Amino acid sequence: MDKSWIDQLKFKDDGLMPAVIQDYANGQVLMVGYMNKEAVKLTLESGLVHFYSRSRQKMWKKGEISGHIQKVREILLDCDEDTLLIKIEQECASCHKGYRTCFYRKVNSDGSLETIEKKIFEPKDIYLRTSPDVASGRCGVSPSKKKNLDWGGFTNNGIDTRNVEGY
Amino acid sequence: MDKSWIDQLKFKDDGLMPAVIQDYANGQVLMVGYMNKEAVKLTLESGLVHFYSRSRQKMWKKGEISGHIQKVREILLDCDEDTLLIKIEQECASCHKGYRTCFYRKVNSDGSLETIEKKIFEPKDIYLRTSPDVASGRCGVSPSKKKNLDWGGFTNNGIDTRNVEGY
Repeated sequence: MDKSWIDQLKFKDDGLMPAVIQDYANGQVLMVGYMNKEAVKLTLESGLVHFYSRSRQKMWKKGEISGHIQKVREILLDCDEDTLLIKIEQECASCHKGYRTCFYRKVNSDGSLETIEKKIFEPKDIYLRTSPDVASGRCGVSPSKKKNLDWGGFTNNGIDTRNVEGY
Repeated sequence: MDKSWIDQLKFKDDGLMPAVIQDYANGQVLMVGYMNKEAVKLTLESGLVHFYSRSRQKMWKKGEISGHIQKVREILLDCDEDTLLIKIEQECASCHKGYRTCFYRKVNSDGSLETIEKKIFEPKDIYLRTSPDVASGRCGVSPSKKKNLDWGGFTNNGIDTRNVEGY
């Protein structure tokens, strides 16, 4: 595959660019994540969305802990080559707070914030579980599927998920 | 109106945050722009999307030159309070290159880039015109509408649009 378009991309000084993640099926904007060049390549090659985590300063396959992977259906590039729009199929939910989309609150005309989405999983069931076989909430990944997601568990992925808010 | 939610927003070190602009009617993602706190306030108060232009280092009412304003229909906030999703009604087109969306190119499976949108105005007809009454392309704003857009013209808005690529 010709990957020369990746060389056209204009990453910011920190080596990152935003990627808008949109549900391929219904057009819902699910989240915005940040990619470096390596994350773009990994996303393209694997067909699964990868980001560069600014807080953890490492590559991050979306769903690597939660199982809530994002399968790439379409990648679009903006006019300035500094932003990506990636249309995906979302496993369960995008947001680490339990909602399908990270944009689950809207600003009302009186300025108040209103939660307009339903919580579809309980974060503690996903991020505090001690093994992949623990029931993982209303839209949790089934144990059989989890095996395909390269679950590393607490001991060998080096991440203490008790302190992980997302992923 | 209670604007205290604006104080919750987490702008980056440069004082900006991305705002994803989505067509309220059909869900198409049109562009990503950057807002500082003032731009968020102006957007909220005026009902028209304002950005902070990084290249020009000044406030920018989207459409101030082109007439291609964005009327706010809904503002949503993400889980980390560092990204906005704004659903809008788009006058004509978002992209300064003449397409409705800035995301007019997709990456094909062979890695080539393909333009998948039709050009709906000619940029030179918009950005090189010498007065607001010059015909402005296939989806140009009518002269009567232009009067409502507070067109400032070349002489009193201080911007030489011969060198302006966008807006």
